[in-house]
Amino acid sequence: MSLIMKRNSIRNFIDKPVPSDLVTKLLESGMQAPSANNQQPWEFIVVDDREILNELVKTSGGARPLNTATLCIIPMIKPGDKSPLFNIQDLSAATENILLEATNLGLGGVWIGVYPDPVRYKHIEKVLNITGDIHPFCMIAIGYPKNQRPIVKRYDESKVHYNKWGK
Amino acid sequence: MSLIMKRNSIRNFIDKPVPSDLVTKLLESGMQAPSANNQQPWEFIVVDDREILNELVKTSGGARPLNTATLCIIPMIKPGDKSPLFNIQDLSAATENILLEATNLGLGGVWIGVYPDPVRYKHIEKVLNITGDIHPFCMIAIGYPKNQRPIVKRYDESKVHYNKWGK
Repeated sequence: MSLIMKRNSIRNFIDKPVPSDLVTKLLESGMQAPSANNQQPWEFIVVDDREILNELVKTSGGARPLNTATLCIIPMIKPGDKSPLFNIQDLSAATENILLEATNLGLGGVWIGVYPDPVRYKHIEKVLNITGDIHPFCMIAIGYPKNQRPIVKRYDESKVHYNKWGK
Repeated sequence: MSLIMKRNSIRNFIDKPVPSDLVTKLLESGMQAPSANNQQPWEFIVVDDREILNELVKTSGGARPLNTATLCIIPMIKPGDKSPLFNIQDLSAATENILLEATNLGLGGVWIGVYPDPVRYKHIEKVLNITGDIHPFCMIAIGYPKNQRPIVKRYDESKVHYNKWGK
């Protein structure tokens, strides 16, 4: 089974830190994503401080996995000079790369949606003292999975159309 | 080297069709992407008709790879009942999955940005007679690579911040 089919959203983790060399691999994977006009309109905050993670949990109901995640990577979205229309897509590709590389490394993770919901991104900006024209895009909760969840295949042939729209 | 580090944007292809079983693997990978509230707010159009590909080339300057691509997958974005704020991110994850699976299968591809640029998505809607509350999200040009391009690592340590914003 390919890496892509093995990825699963993991929301519960054991209490074991992610070694720094694996954190670097995750960040390398994120930054290797394609971006419109190769603008790479991103930065990354790595959080492994338990007290800060506890504050980030309060961002939204979906942020609960940070209660047990030992690592949170926060991709930051900043407007590039070119192609600002596609910045969200660029950051999304980087996020998916990180989640897939987590699977590849025996870790697990889940994408916690943040931007463009101002309630969510402003909470994180307050916790981390972020100011200016750059915003938290999402939070990726990462760690060693507590349980393996079965893979549910989502392929749906009815959603495929050949050479024309409709059936 | 992991799959993610091997992916490259490929814009020139040899004249060899992509077998249908590989097309299915690409679509399976796209639909396996995570989505907010598991809404899977997508459909997919598969184009391998040369005449239609030639019309799609006219979408934008970035669509030129469709001159030689033997396959174009067009993920379609449609609002889910929940989490419409994150639909673009869901479609982006699906797109990145397809590009990575293309690499995994010995194919190559490139992400041609479309939505939310109305000039681009309306052109495609005209070519394919698409109407209603669903839009072409992007075009993924796919085929067998004409040349291998060297991998340029994009990792930039200056873009990483630990447990706080700034240095």
